[in-house]
Amino acid sequence: MAYIDLPVAPALGREFPGIVGPMTFRPETAAPINELVNVLLRGESTLSRGERELIATHVSWRNDCFFCQTIHGAVAAAQLGHDEDLVHSVKTDWLHAHISPKMKALLNIAGKVQQGGKHVTEDDVAGARSHGATDMEIHDTVLIAAVFCMANRYVDGLGTWAPENPDMYRANAAEIVAHGYSAVTETASAHVSR
Amino acid sequence: MAYIDLPVAPALGREFPGIVGPMTFRPETAAPINELVNVLLRGESTLSRGERELIATHVSWRNDCFFCQTIHGAVAAAQLGHDEDLVHSVKTDWLHAHISPKMKALLNIAGKVQQGGKHVTEDDVAGARSHGATDMEIHDTVLIAAVFCMANRYVDGLGTWAPENPDMYRANAAEIVAHGYSAVTETASAHVSR
Repeated sequence: MAYIDLPVAPALGREFPGIVGPMTFRPETAAPINELVNVLLRGESTLSRGERELIATHVSWRNDCFFCQTIHGAVAAAQLGHDEDLVHSVKTDWLHAHISPKMKALLNIAGKVQQGGKHVTEDDVAGARSHGATDMEIHDTVLIAAVFCMANRYVDGLGTWAPENPDMYRANAAEIVAHGYSAVTETASAHVSR
Repeated sequence: MAYIDLPVAPALGREFPGIVGPMTFRPETAAPINELVNVLLRGESTLSRGERELIATHVSWRNDCFFCQTIHGAVAAAQLGHDEDLVHSVKTDWLHAHISPKMKALLNIAGKVQQGGKHVTEDDVAGARSHGATDMEIHDTVLIAAVFCMANRYVDGLGTWAPENPDMYRANAAEIVAHGYSAVTETASAHVSR
């Protein structure tokens, strides 16, 4: 049970898991959050969708948010040839993961943002630039990391629940890959019973 | 100078300060962020606009984000009879500030969210409820705190600059009170030179 009374998903007999619970409770704030995440993780970018999901997953892992790290990890894997081992290594041992030096430099920045904005230094940014990162990629990395510091706090600060079965996340990830983030919440909201 | 090359405001001869700088750089992400903040801080609510700005200010102060705590502090003061002393006390000594027990209980939750979502306990939520807080007020407090953990990291993670003169913040606060958050960014974006 979350800390507040959230709409019930009939198929589950309880609230929707993770962020979907409070999003069905407050659709007015869910809409811009989903739009922001769609632009950042799925919109036009020189970073692949998989790379951007890895940044989201890494930050959510650092914030110890089980729901977010698992669903975005599943989306990342789905975008990266279903390589769940790669996603696992980016969470726990990113310095030795099989990703590009540019991605490592961006994950370094994302990790600093997770600790607090002032932890990012000119050297961190110069490091990313030396590996070919553009200003837009640096901007989006900082904002993705910041957005997940929001989402993780929203999910855990309201005491939402998270399923344990990885197959549930794989199935939801397939829906997100196909239809985007707004569609998931809109489908959930259409099925709530209060 | 920010860490990335932001559009220049002709009247300033440099980037727009704080979050307005990166927002003029990336209008696609600025739009949903402004919409989210407008709904949370200015939309319909049983918390006054001043009370919601106090939550934003307190969290930004806890994150040591000078730009955000100063502009939202100025907006809070403008909404609360220009009581800048009250705003100062809510930042530095909120337990003894002249605010309602309900607001103190909500600031307690907001401060826990700032540390991390898992710091919020059932007792924190029960405490707010015992002082009359509704589920919607608790939800919005958690989300406002989470949103400012994002905004503070966005502002400081990109190394943006912040004016020191409090009169600049008072003037911008008057514009925000009159026209809302989206209008400020849209006006800035209309005046950038790249």
